[in-house]
Amino acid sequence: MSAGTIYGVGLGPGDPELMSVRADRLVRSARHVAFFRKVGRRGRARTIVEGMLRPDAVEFAMEYPVTTEIRFDDPAYSDCLSKFYLNVTTRLRDLSNRGCDVVVLCEGDPFFYGSFMHLYARLKDDVPINVIPAITGMSAAWTATGIPVTWGDDVMTVLLGTMPQDDLTRHLRDADAHVIMKIGRNLQKVRDAVAQAGKLDRAWLIECASMTEQRVMPLAQAEGQSAPYFSTVVIHGNGRRPS
Amino acid sequence: MSAGTIYGVGLGPGDPELMSVRADRLVRSARHVAFFRKVGRRGRARTIVEGMLRPDAVEFAMEYPVTTEIRFDDPAYSDCLSKFYLNVTTRLRDLSNRGCDVVVLCEGDPFFYGSFMHLYARLKDDVPINVIPAITGMSAAWTATGIPVTWGDDVMTVLLGTMPQDDLTRHLRDADAHVIMKIGRNLQKVRDAVAQAGKLDRAWLIECASMTEQRVMPLAQAEGQSAPYFSTVVIHGNGRRPS
Ligand SMILES: C[S@@+](CC[C@H](N)C(=O)[O-])C[C@H]1O[C@@H](n2cnc3c(N)ncnc32)[C@H](O)[C@@H]1O
Ligand SMILES: C[S@@+](CC[C@H](N)C(=O)[O-])C[C@H]1O[C@@H](n2cnc3c(N)ncnc32)[C@H](O)[C@@H]1O
Repeated sequence: MSAGTIYGVGLGPGDPELMSVRADRLVRSARHVAFFRKVGRRGRARTIVEGMLRPDAVEFAMEYPVTTEIRFDDPAYSDCLSKFYLNVTTRLRDLSNRGCDVVVLCEGDPFFYGSFMHLYARLKDDVPINVIPAITGMSAAWTATGIPVTWGDDVMTVLLGTMPQDDLTRHLRDADAHVIMKIGRNLQKVRDAVAQAGKLDRAWLIECASMTEQRVMPLAQAEGQSAPYFSTVVIHGNGRRPS
Repeated sequence: MSAGTIYGVGLGPGDPELMSVRADRLVRSARHVAFFRKVGRRGRARTIVEGMLRPDAVEFAMEYPVTTEIRFDDPAYSDCLSKFYLNVTTRLRDLSNRGCDVVVLCEGDPFFYGSFMHLYARLKDDVPINVIPAITGMSAAWTATGIPVTWGDDVMTVLLGTMPQDDLTRHLRDADAHVIMKIGRNLQKVRDAVAQAGKLDRAWLIECASMTEQRVMPLAQAEGQSAPYFSTVVIHGNGRRPS
Protein backbone atom coordinates (compact mmCIF):
# COMPACT_ATOMS: atom_id res chain seq x y z
CA MET A 1 0.00 0.00 0.00
CA SER A 2 1.39 3.38 -0.88
CA ALA A 3 1.45 6.24 1.61
CA GLY A 4 -1.28 8.87 1.46
CA THR A 5 -0.46 12.48 0.61
CA ILE A 6 -0.97 15.43 2.96
CA TYR A 7 -2.25 18.35 0.87
CA GLY A 8 -1.74 21.84 2.25
CA VAL A 9 -4.58 23.46 0.33
CA GLY A 10 -4.64 27.25 0.19
CA LEU A 11 -8.27 28.40 0.21
CA GLY A 12 -7.62 32.02 -0.70
CA PRO A 13 -9.05 35.09 1.03
CA GLY A 14 -12.52 33.79 1.89
CA ASP A 15 -14.80 33.97 -1.14
CA PRO A 16 -15.16 30.31 -2.20
CA GLU A 17 -15.15 31.38 -5.88
CA LEU A 18 -11.62 32.66 -5.34
CA MET A 19 -10.35 29.19 -4.55
CA SER A 20 -8.25 27.73 -7.34
CA VAL A 21 -9.76 25.11 -9.61
CA ARG A 22 -7.34 22.59 -8.06
CA ALA A 23 -8.19 23.54 -4.46
CA ASP A 24 -11.90 23.40 -5.26
CA ARG A 25 -11.53 19.89 -6.64
CA LEU A 26 -9.35 18.64 -3.77
CA VAL A 27 -11.72 20.04 -1.14
CA ARG A 28 -14.85 18.63 -2.79
CA SER A 29 -13.40 15.15 -3.21
CA ALA A 30 -11.56 14.82 0.11
CA ARG A 31 -12.30 11.89 2.42
CA HIS A 32 -10.14 13.34 5.23
CA VAL A 33 -10.19 17.05 5.99
CA ALA A 34 -8.08 18.70 8.73
CA PHE A 35 -8.14 22.31 9.92
CA PHE A 36 -6.99 24.43 12.84
CA ARG A 37 -9.49 26.06 15.12
CA LYS A 38 -9.86 27.49 18.59
CA VAL A 39 -11.85 25.45 21.10
CA GLY A 40 -15.51 26.31 20.83
CA ARG A 41 -15.20 27.91 17.38
CA ARG A 42 -16.21 26.65 13.96
CA GLY A 43 -12.77 27.33 12.52
CA ARG A 44 -12.04 30.08 10.02
CA ALA A 45 -10.74 27.85 7.22
CA ARG A 46 -13.54 25.33 7.82
CA THR A 47 -16.09 28.13 7.47
CA ILE A 48 -14.80 29.00 3.99
CA VAL A 49 -15.58 25.50 2.67
CA GLU A 50 -19.03 25.27 4.29
CA GLY A 51 -21.33 23.22 2.04
CA MET A 52 -18.48 21.94 -0.13
CA LEU A 53 -17.38 18.76 1.70
CA ARG A 54 -18.50 15.25 0.82
CA PRO A 55 -21.22 13.98 3.13
CA ASP A 56 -18.92 11.16 4.21
CA ALA A 57 -15.87 13.38 4.79
CA VAL A 58 -14.08 12.68 8.07
CA GLU A 59 -13.20 15.95 9.76
CA PHE A 60 -10.17 16.41 11.98
CA ALA A 61 -10.41 19.68 13.94
CA MET A 62 -6.92 20.52 15.20
CA GLU A 63 -7.86 22.53 18.27
CA TYR A 64 -5.26 24.90 19.64
CA PRO A 65 -4.60 24.34 23.34
CA VAL A 66 -5.98 27.13 25.49
CA THR A 67 -3.00 29.40 26.12
CA THR A 68 -4.59 32.62 27.32
CA GLU A 69 -3.31 31.96 30.84
CA ILE A 70 0.31 31.71 29.64
CA ARG A 71 2.32 34.63 28.23
CA PHE A 72 3.79 33.65 24.89
CA ASP A 73 7.34 34.48 26.04
CA ASP A 74 6.90 31.98 28.90
CA PRO A 75 8.69 28.70 27.98
CA ALA A 76 5.52 26.87 29.05
CA TYR A 77 3.80 28.45 26.04
CA SER A 78 6.08 26.95 23.38
CA ASP A 79 6.13 23.71 25.33
CA CYS A 80 2.39 23.52 25.16
CA LEU A 81 2.35 24.33 21.42
CA SER A 82 5.13 21.82 20.67
CA LYS A 83 3.11 19.06 22.30
CA PHE A 84 0.06 20.11 20.31
CA TYR A 85 1.94 20.03 16.98
CA LEU A 86 3.45 16.67 17.90
CA ASN A 87 0.00 15.25 18.60
CA VAL A 88 -1.63 16.46 15.41
CA THR A 89 1.30 15.52 13.17
CA THR A 90 1.33 12.05 14.73
CA ARG A 91 -2.27 11.65 13.69
CA LEU A 92 -1.65 13.01 10.18
CA ARG A 93 1.39 10.72 9.72
CA ASP A 94 -0.75 7.85 10.86
CA LEU A 95 -3.43 8.58 8.28
CA SER A 96 -0.78 8.81 5.58
CA ASN A 97 0.75 5.49 6.68
CA ARG A 98 -2.66 3.89 6.36
CA GLY A 99 -2.80 5.13 2.75
CA CYS A 100 -5.21 8.01 3.34
CA ASP A 101 -4.86 11.36 1.61
CA VAL A 102 -5.63 14.32 3.89
CA VAL A 103 -6.63 17.82 2.80
CA VAL A 104 -5.41 20.41 5.32
CA LEU A 105 -7.44 23.60 4.90
CA CYS A 106 -5.30 26.77 4.97
CA GLU A 107 -6.41 30.42 4.98
CA GLY A 108 -4.88 32.34 2.07
CA ASP A 109 -1.60 31.00 0.76
CA PRO A 110 -0.13 28.24 2.99
CA PHE A 111 3.51 29.39 2.76
CA PHE A 112 2.76 33.07 3.42
CA TYR A 113 2.56 33.52 7.23
CA GLY A 114 0.48 30.36 7.41
CA SER A 115 0.15 28.09 10.46
CA PHE A 116 0.40 25.14 8.06
CA MET A 117 4.19 25.59 8.09
CA HIS A 118 4.32 24.14 11.62
CA LEU A 119 2.87 20.90 10.25
CA TYR A 120 4.91 21.06 7.07
CA ALA A 121 8.23 21.44 8.90
CA ARG A 122 7.47 18.37 11.01
CA LEU A 123 6.17 16.14 8.18
CA LYS A 124 8.03 17.03 5.01
CA ASP A 125 10.94 14.63 5.47
CA ASP A 126 8.93 11.44 5.91
CA VAL A 127 5.43 11.96 4.50
CA PRO A 128 4.38 12.80 0.90
CA ILE A 129 3.24 16.41 1.12
CA ASN A 130 1.90 18.75 -1.53
CA VAL A 131 1.29 22.49 -1.16
CA ILE A 132 -1.25 24.34 -3.31
CA PRO A 133 -0.60 28.10 -3.48
CA ALA A 134 -3.55 30.43 -3.26
CA ILE A 135 -4.72 34.01 -3.49
CA THR A 136 -3.43 35.86 -0.43
CA GLY A 137 -5.61 37.96 1.85
CA MET A 138 -3.60 41.00 0.79
CA SER A 139 -4.45 40.51 -2.91
CA ALA A 140 -8.14 40.55 -2.04
CA ALA A 141 -7.53 43.57 0.20
CA TRP A 142 -5.91 45.77 -2.43
CA THR A 143 -8.40 44.62 -5.04
CA ALA A 144 -11.19 45.77 -2.70
CA THR A 145 -9.73 49.30 -2.62
CA GLY A 146 -10.11 49.60 -6.39
CA ILE A 147 -6.54 50.92 -6.73
CA PRO A 148 -3.51 49.02 -8.10
CA VAL A 149 -1.08 48.45 -5.23
CA THR A 150 2.20 48.57 -7.18
CA TRP A 151 3.43 49.52 -10.62
CA GLY A 152 6.68 50.51 -12.32
CA ASP A 153 9.54 50.06 -9.86
CA ASP A 154 7.52 50.42 -6.64
CA VAL A 155 9.10 48.66 -3.69
CA MET A 156 6.51 46.96 -1.49
CA THR A 157 6.98 45.80 2.10
CA VAL A 158 4.80 43.45 4.08
CA LEU A 159 4.69 44.32 7.80
CA LEU A 160 2.88 42.90 10.84
CA GLY A 161 0.82 44.83 13.35
CA THR A 162 2.53 42.76 16.04
CA MET A 163 5.88 44.52 15.38
CA PRO A 164 7.18 47.25 17.70
CA GLN A 165 5.90 50.67 16.64
CA ASP A 166 9.37 52.07 15.88
CA ASP A 167 10.18 49.19 13.53
CA LEU A 168 6.87 49.73 11.78
CA THR A 169 7.56 53.44 11.34
CA ARG A 170 11.08 52.88 10.07
CA HIS A 171 9.94 50.37 7.42
CA LEU A 172 6.99 52.58 6.47
CA ARG A 173 9.43 55.39 5.64
CA ASP A 174 11.58 53.23 3.39
CA ALA A 175 9.40 51.86 0.59
CA ASP A 176 6.64 52.92 -1.79
CA ALA A 177 3.79 50.52 -1.08
CA HIS A 178 2.97 48.70 2.15
CA VAL A 179 0.77 45.94 3.41
CA ILE A 180 0.27 45.55 7.17
CA MET A 181 -1.26 42.29 8.36
CA LYS A 182 -2.31 41.11 11.82
CA ILE A 183 -4.06 44.35 12.72
CA GLY A 184 -6.55 43.07 15.34
CA ARG A 185 -5.74 44.60 18.72
CA ASN A 186 -2.76 46.45 17.22
CA LEU A 187 -4.99 48.91 15.35
CA GLN A 188 -4.06 51.98 17.41
CA LYS A 189 -0.32 51.24 17.28
CA VAL A 190 -0.50 50.68 13.52
CA ARG A 191 -2.37 53.95 13.00
CA ASP A 192 0.19 55.81 15.10
CA ALA A 193 3.10 54.28 13.18
CA VAL A 194 1.52 55.11 9.81
CA ALA A 195 0.84 58.70 10.94
CA GLN A 196 4.41 59.04 12.24
CA ALA A 197 5.70 57.95 8.84
CA GLY A 198 3.54 60.62 7.19
CA LYS A 199 1.36 58.17 5.25
CA LEU A 200 -1.96 58.23 7.11
CA ASP A 201 -3.74 60.07 4.28
CA ARG A 202 -2.86 57.27 1.85
CA ALA A 203 -3.67 54.29 4.10
CA TRP A 204 -6.73 52.05 3.82
CA LEU A 205 -8.13 49.50 6.25
CA ILE A 206 -9.80 46.49 4.66
CA GLU A 207 -11.81 44.13 6.83
CA CYS A 208 -12.81 40.65 5.61
CA ALA A 209 -11.68 41.21 2.02
CA SER A 210 -13.79 39.25 -0.52
CA MET A 211 -16.19 38.02 2.17
CA THR A 212 -19.81 39.14 2.53
CA GLU A 213 -18.79 41.26 5.54
CA GLN A 214 -16.13 43.13 3.51
CA ARG A 215 -15.53 46.76 4.59
CA VAL A 216 -13.08 49.28 3.12
CA MET A 217 -12.31 52.57 4.84
CA PRO A 218 -9.53 55.15 5.18
CA LEU A 219 -7.36 54.03 8.10
CA ALA A 220 -7.72 57.52 9.57
CA GLN A 221 -11.46 56.88 9.96
CA ALA A 222 -11.18 53.46 11.60
CA GLU A 223 -12.67 53.78 15.03
CA GLY A 224 -11.86 51.98 18.25
CA GLN A 225 -8.88 50.06 19.51
CA SER A 226 -9.22 46.93 17.47
CA ALA A 227 -10.22 45.47 14.11
CA PRO A 228 -11.50 41.99 13.15
CA TYR A 229 -8.98 39.16 12.72
CA PHE A 230 -9.30 39.38 8.92
CA SER A 231 -8.06 42.97 8.61
CA THR A 232 -5.28 44.35 6.47
CA VAL A 233 -3.89 47.86 5.96
CA VAL A 234 -2.85 48.79 2.42
CA ILE A 235 -0.81 51.82 1.35
CA HIS A 236 -0.57 52.01 -2.43
CA GLY A 237 2.58 52.85 -4.39
CA ASN A 238 2.76 55.81 -6.74
CA GLY A 239 4.41 54.02 -9.64
CA ARG A 240 8.13 54.67 -9.29
CA ARG A 241 9.72 55.05 -12.72
CA PRO A 242 12.19 52.37 -13.74
CA SER A 243 15.59 54.07 -13.93
CA MET B 1 -29.33 48.58 -23.30
CA SER B 2 -27.01 48.43 -20.32
CA ALA B 3 -23.27 48.88 -20.66
CA GLY B 4 -21.04 45.81 -20.77
CA THR B 5 -18.50 45.16 -18.04
CA ILE B 6 -14.74 45.03 -18.56
CA TYR B 7 -13.36 42.19 -16.42
CA GLY B 8 -9.70 42.35 -15.46
CA VAL B 9 -9.28 38.64 -14.90
CA GLY B 10 -6.16 37.51 -13.05
CA LEU B 11 -5.05 34.15 -14.48
CA GLY B 12 -2.52 33.31 -11.78
CA PRO B 13 1.05 32.10 -12.29
CA GLY B 14 0.55 29.92 -15.38
CA ASP B 15 -0.85 26.52 -14.43
CA PRO B 16 -4.49 26.71 -15.62
CA GLU B 17 -5.57 24.69 -12.55
CA LEU B 18 -4.34 27.58 -10.40
CA MET B 19 -6.88 29.95 -11.92
CA SER B 20 -9.69 30.79 -9.52
CA VAL B 21 -13.05 29.16 -9.98
CA ARG B 22 -14.42 32.58 -10.95
CA ALA B 23 -11.65 33.31 -13.45
CA ASP B 24 -12.06 29.85 -14.98
CA ARG B 25 -15.78 30.44 -15.49
CA LEU B 26 -15.34 33.96 -16.89
CA VAL B 27 -12.67 32.83 -19.35
CA ARG B 28 -14.64 29.80 -20.56
CA SER B 29 -17.82 31.75 -21.11
CA ALA B 30 -16.39 34.96 -22.59
CA ARG B 31 -17.56 36.19 -25.99
CA HIS B 32 -14.91 38.94 -26.07
CA VAL B 33 -11.39 38.28 -24.89
CA ALA B 34 -8.60 40.89 -24.89
CA PHE B 35 -4.92 40.45 -24.05
CA PHE B 36 -1.60 42.23 -24.46
CA ARG B 37 1.12 40.77 -26.62
CA LYS B 38 4.19 41.69 -28.56
CA VAL B 39 3.91 41.75 -32.35
CA GLY B 40 4.60 38.30 -33.75
CA ARG B 41 4.08 36.53 -30.41
CA ARG B 42 1.20 34.41 -29.16
CA GLY B 43 0.87 36.47 -25.98
CA ARG B 44 1.82 35.16 -22.54
CA ALA B 45 -1.63 35.51 -20.95
CA ARG B 46 -3.30 34.12 -24.08
CA THR B 47 -1.06 31.06 -23.88
CA ILE B 48 -2.26 30.27 -20.34
CA VAL B 49 -5.89 29.93 -21.51
CA GLU B 50 -5.07 27.85 -24.59
CA GLY B 51 -7.93 25.41 -25.24
CA MET B 52 -10.29 27.14 -22.79
CA LEU B 53 -11.99 29.75 -24.99
CA ARG B 54 -15.38 29.35 -26.63
CA PRO B 55 -15.12 28.47 -30.32
CA ASP B 56 -16.98 31.69 -31.15
CA ALA B 57 -14.92 33.93 -28.87
CA VAL B 58 -13.80 37.16 -30.51
CA GLU B 59 -10.16 37.81 -29.68
CA PHE B 60 -8.68 41.29 -29.36
CA ALA B 61 -4.87 41.14 -29.31
CA MET B 62 -3.61 44.44 -27.90
CA GLU B 63 -0.23 44.57 -29.63
CA TYR B 64 2.40 46.76 -28.05
CA PRO B 65 3.91 49.19 -30.54
CA VAL B 66 7.47 48.31 -31.46
CA THR B 67 9.62 50.53 -29.24
CA THR B 68 13.02 48.87 -29.39
CA GLU B 69 14.35 51.78 -31.48
CA ILE B 70 13.35 54.32 -28.82
CA ARG B 71 14.98 54.57 -25.37
CA PHE B 72 12.29 54.52 -22.71
CA ASP B 73 13.44 57.83 -21.21
CA ASP B 74 12.92 59.46 -24.61
CA PRO B 75 9.60 61.40 -24.59
CA ALA B 76 8.75 59.70 -27.89
CA TYR B 77 8.53 56.43 -25.94
CA SER B 78 5.77 57.49 -23.58
CA ASP B 79 4.07 59.32 -26.44
CA CYS B 80 3.96 56.14 -28.42
CA LEU B 81 2.63 54.14 -25.45
CA SER B 82 0.02 56.78 -24.63
CA LYS B 83 -1.36 56.58 -28.15
CA PHE B 84 -1.45 52.80 -27.91
CA TYR B 85 -3.38 52.85 -24.61
CA LEU B 86 -5.76 55.44 -26.02
CA ASN B 87 -6.45 53.23 -29.03
CA VAL B 88 -7.10 50.06 -27.11
CA THR B 89 -9.21 51.71 -24.42
CA THR B 90 -11.28 53.39 -27.12
CA ARG B 91 -12.05 49.98 -28.55
CA LEU B 92 -12.82 48.50 -25.10
CA ARG B 93 -15.10 51.45 -24.23
CA ASP B 94 -16.83 50.94 -27.54
CA LEU B 95 -17.52 47.29 -26.84
CA SER B 96 -18.89 48.19 -23.41
CA ASN B 97 -21.13 50.88 -24.92
CA ARG B 98 -22.53 48.28 -27.28
CA GLY B 99 -23.43 46.13 -24.28
CA CYS B 100 -20.61 43.63 -24.62
CA ASP B 101 -18.73 42.22 -21.65
CA VAL B 102 -15.00 41.86 -22.25
CA VAL B 103 -12.60 39.58 -20.38
CA VAL B 104 -9.11 41.08 -20.25
CA LEU B 105 -6.57 38.33 -19.56
CA CYS B 106 -3.96 39.33 -16.96
CA GLU B 107 -0.84 37.43 -15.83
CA GLY B 108 -0.86 36.83 -12.08
CA ASP B 109 -2.81 39.34 -10.00
CA PRO B 110 -3.97 42.34 -12.09
CA PHE B 111 -3.27 44.99 -9.40
CA PHE B 112 0.20 43.69 -8.53
CA TYR B 113 2.65 45.21 -11.07
CA GLY B 114 0.17 44.38 -13.83
CA SER B 115 -0.06 46.13 -17.19
CA PHE B 116 -3.85 46.01 -16.80
CA MET B 117 -3.59 49.07 -14.56
CA HIS B 118 -2.92 51.23 -17.62
CA LEU B 119 -6.32 50.24 -18.99
CA TYR B 120 -7.99 50.41 -15.60
CA ALA B 121 -6.81 53.96 -14.90
CA ARG B 122 -8.22 55.13 -18.23
CA LEU B 123 -11.57 53.32 -18.02
CA LYS B 124 -12.62 53.15 -14.39
CA ASP B 125 -14.49 56.45 -14.26
CA ASP B 126 -16.85 55.81 -17.14
CA VAL B 127 -17.04 52.05 -17.81
CA PRO B 128 -18.24 49.26 -15.48
CA ILE B 129 -15.07 47.44 -14.54
CA ASN B 130 -14.47 44.46 -12.32
CA VAL B 131 -11.11 43.11 -11.15
CA ILE B 132 -10.62 39.47 -10.15
CA PRO B 133 -7.58 38.93 -7.89
CA ALA B 134 -5.38 35.95 -8.54
CA ILE B 135 -2.47 33.89 -7.32
CA THR B 136 0.69 35.92 -7.90
CA GLY B 137 3.77 34.62 -9.66
CA MET B 138 5.69 35.00 -6.39
CA SER B 139 3.31 32.66 -4.51
CA ALA B 140 3.94 29.96 -7.10
CA ALA B 141 7.66 30.73 -6.91
CA TRP B 142 8.02 30.26 -3.16
CA THR B 143 5.75 27.23 -3.24
CA ALA B 144 8.09 25.70 -5.83
CA THR B 145 11.04 26.02 -3.44
CA GLY B 146 9.26 23.85 -0.85
CA ILE B 147 10.06 26.32 1.94
CA PRO B 148 7.62 28.72 3.62
CA VAL B 149 8.58 32.28 2.66
CA THR B 150 7.52 34.08 5.86
CA TRP B 151 6.40 33.23 9.39
CA GLY B 152 6.22 34.91 12.77
CA ASP B 153 7.06 38.59 12.41
CA ASP B 154 9.17 38.31 9.25
CA VAL B 155 9.23 41.51 7.21
CA MET B 156 9.08 40.83 3.47
CA THR B 157 10.03 43.21 0.67
CA VAL B 158 9.21 42.96 -3.00
CA LEU B 159 11.95 44.38 -5.22
CA LEU B 160 12.48 44.68 -8.98
CA GLY B 161 15.52 43.59 -10.94
CA THR B 162 15.19 46.87 -12.86
CA MET B 163 16.17 48.90 -9.77
CA PRO B 164 19.68 50.34 -9.39
CA GLN B 165 22.04 47.86 -7.73
CA ASP B 166 22.67 50.05 -4.67
CA ASP B 167 18.95 50.38 -3.97
CA LEU B 168 18.57 46.63 -4.26
CA THR B 169 21.43 46.01 -1.83
CA ARG B 170 20.13 48.51 0.69
CA HIS B 171 16.63 46.98 0.73
CA LEU B 172 18.10 43.47 0.83
CA ARG B 173 19.91 44.38 4.05
CA ASP B 174 16.81 45.68 5.77
CA ALA B 175 14.21 42.91 5.89
CA ASP B 176 13.93 39.18 6.56
CA ALA B 177 12.38 37.79 3.39
CA HIS B 178 12.64 39.10 -0.15
CA VAL B 179 11.08 38.59 -3.53
CA ILE B 180 12.81 40.04 -6.59
CA MET B 181 10.77 40.18 -9.78
CA LYS B 182 11.68 41.24 -13.34
CA ILE B 183 14.97 39.34 -13.36
CA GLY B 184 15.40 38.82 -17.13
CA ARG B 185 18.46 40.68 -18.35
CA ASN B 186 19.11 41.98 -14.81
CA LEU B 187 20.26 38.58 -13.55
CA GLN B 188 23.91 39.51 -13.04
CA LYS B 189 23.08 42.77 -11.28
CA VAL B 190 20.59 41.02 -9.01
CA ARG B 191 23.10 38.31 -8.12
CA ASP B 192 25.72 40.96 -7.32
CA ALA B 193 23.29 42.91 -5.12
CA VAL B 194 22.22 39.77 -3.24
CA ALA B 195 25.87 38.78 -2.70
CA GLN B 196 26.74 42.29 -1.52
CA ALA B 197 23.93 42.07 1.03
CA GLY B 198 25.36 38.76 2.26
CA LYS B 199 22.35 36.67 1.29
CA LEU B 200 23.53 34.74 -1.77
CA ASP B 201 23.62 31.42 0.11
CA ARG B 202 19.91 31.77 0.94
CA ALA B 203 18.64 32.94 -2.47
CA TRP B 204 16.72 30.84 -4.98
CA LEU B 205 15.95 31.49 -8.62
CA ILE B 206 12.61 30.16 -9.84
CA GLU B 207 11.88 30.11 -13.56
CA CYS B 208 8.34 29.61 -14.90
CA ALA B 209 6.83 28.72 -11.52
CA SER B 210 3.88 26.29 -11.81
CA MET B 211 4.40 25.87 -15.57
CA THR B 212 5.65 22.69 -17.25
CA GLU B 213 9.02 24.41 -17.80
CA GLN B 214 9.41 25.17 -14.06
CA ARG B 215 13.01 25.23 -12.78
CA VAL B 216 14.24 25.91 -9.24
CA MET B 217 17.93 26.50 -8.45
CA PRO B 218 20.16 28.29 -6.00
CA LEU B 219 20.72 31.81 -7.36
CA ALA B 220 24.47 31.25 -6.93
CA GLN B 221 24.28 28.48 -9.53
CA ALA B 222 22.28 30.38 -12.11
CA GLU B 223 24.45 30.69 -15.16
CA GLY B 224 24.69 33.35 -17.80
CA GLN B 225 23.65 36.96 -18.02
CA SER B 226 19.90 36.56 -18.22
CA ALA B 227 16.89 34.52 -17.12
CA PRO B 228 13.51 33.90 -18.81
CA TYR B 229 10.80 36.57 -18.48
CA PHE B 230 8.93 34.46 -15.90
CA SER B 231 11.74 34.40 -13.31
CA THR B 232 11.64 35.37 -9.67
CA VAL B 233 14.26 35.35 -6.91
CA VAL B 234 13.07 34.31 -3.45
CA ILE B 235 14.98 34.71 -0.18
CA HIS B 236 13.07 33.07 2.69
CA GLY B 237 12.62 34.57 6.13
CA ASN B 238 13.83 32.82 9.26
CA GLY B 239 10.71 33.29 11.35
CA ARG B 240 11.30 36.43 13.40
CA ARG B 241 9.73 36.05 16.83
CA PRO B 242 6.85 38.38 17.60
CA SER B 243 8.10 40.69 20.39
C1 LIG C 1 -1.69 34.37 9.98
S1 LIG C 1 -1.90 35.48 8.62
C2 LIG C 1 -2.27 34.34 7.31
C3 LIG C 1 -2.14 34.94 5.94
C4 LIG C 1 -2.61 34.01 4.83
N1 LIG C 1 -1.80 32.81 4.77
C5 LIG C 1 -2.61 34.73 3.49
O1 LIG C 1 -1.99 34.23 2.52
O2 LIG C 1 -3.23 35.78 3.38
C6 LIG C 1 -3.48 36.21 8.95
C7 LIG C 1 -3.58 37.65 8.45
O3 LIG C 1 -3.88 37.66 7.07
C8 LIG C 1 -4.65 38.81 6.74
N2 LIG C 1 -5.84 38.34 5.98
C9 LIG C 1 -6.05 37.09 5.53
N3 LIG C 1 -7.20 37.02 4.84
C10 LIG C 1 -7.75 38.25 4.86
C11 LIG C 1 -8.95 38.83 4.32
N4 LIG C 1 -9.83 38.09 3.62
N5 LIG C 1 -9.18 40.14 4.53
C12 LIG C 1 -8.31 40.89 5.22
N6 LIG C 1 -7.18 40.41 5.76
C13 LIG C 1 -6.88 39.10 5.57
C14 LIG C 1 -5.00 39.49 8.06
O4 LIG C 1 -4.12 40.58 8.22
C15 LIG C 1 -4.72 38.42 9.09
O5 LIG C 1 -4.27 38.99 10.32
C1 LIG D 1 5.03 42.69 -14.88
S1 LIG D 1 5.21 41.59 -13.51
C2 LIG D 1 3.56 40.97 -13.36
C3 LIG D 1 3.31 40.28 -12.04
C4 LIG D 1 1.95 39.60 -11.96
N1 LIG D 1 0.88 40.59 -12.08
C5 LIG D 1 1.82 38.78 -10.68
O1 LIG D 1 0.88 38.99 -9.92
O2 LIG D 1 2.69 37.91 -10.47
C6 LIG D 1 6.08 40.24 -14.26
C7 LIG D 1 7.01 39.52 -13.29
O3 LIG D 1 6.28 38.63 -12.48
C8 LIG D 1 7.08 37.51 -12.13
N2 LIG D 1 6.32 36.28 -12.46
C9 LIG D 1 5.03 36.23 -12.85
N3 LIG D 1 4.64 34.95 -13.03
C10 LIG D 1 5.71 34.17 -12.75
C11 LIG D 1 5.93 32.76 -12.75
N4 LIG D 1 4.96 31.90 -13.09
N5 LIG D 1 7.16 32.31 -12.40
C12 LIG D 1 8.14 33.16 -12.05
N6 LIG D 1 7.98 34.49 -12.05
C13 LIG D 1 6.78 35.01 -12.38
C14 LIG D 1 8.39 37.64 -12.92
O4 LIG D 1 9.36 38.16 -12.03
C15 LIG D 1 8.04 38.67 -13.96
O5 LIG D 1 9.18 39.46 -14.32
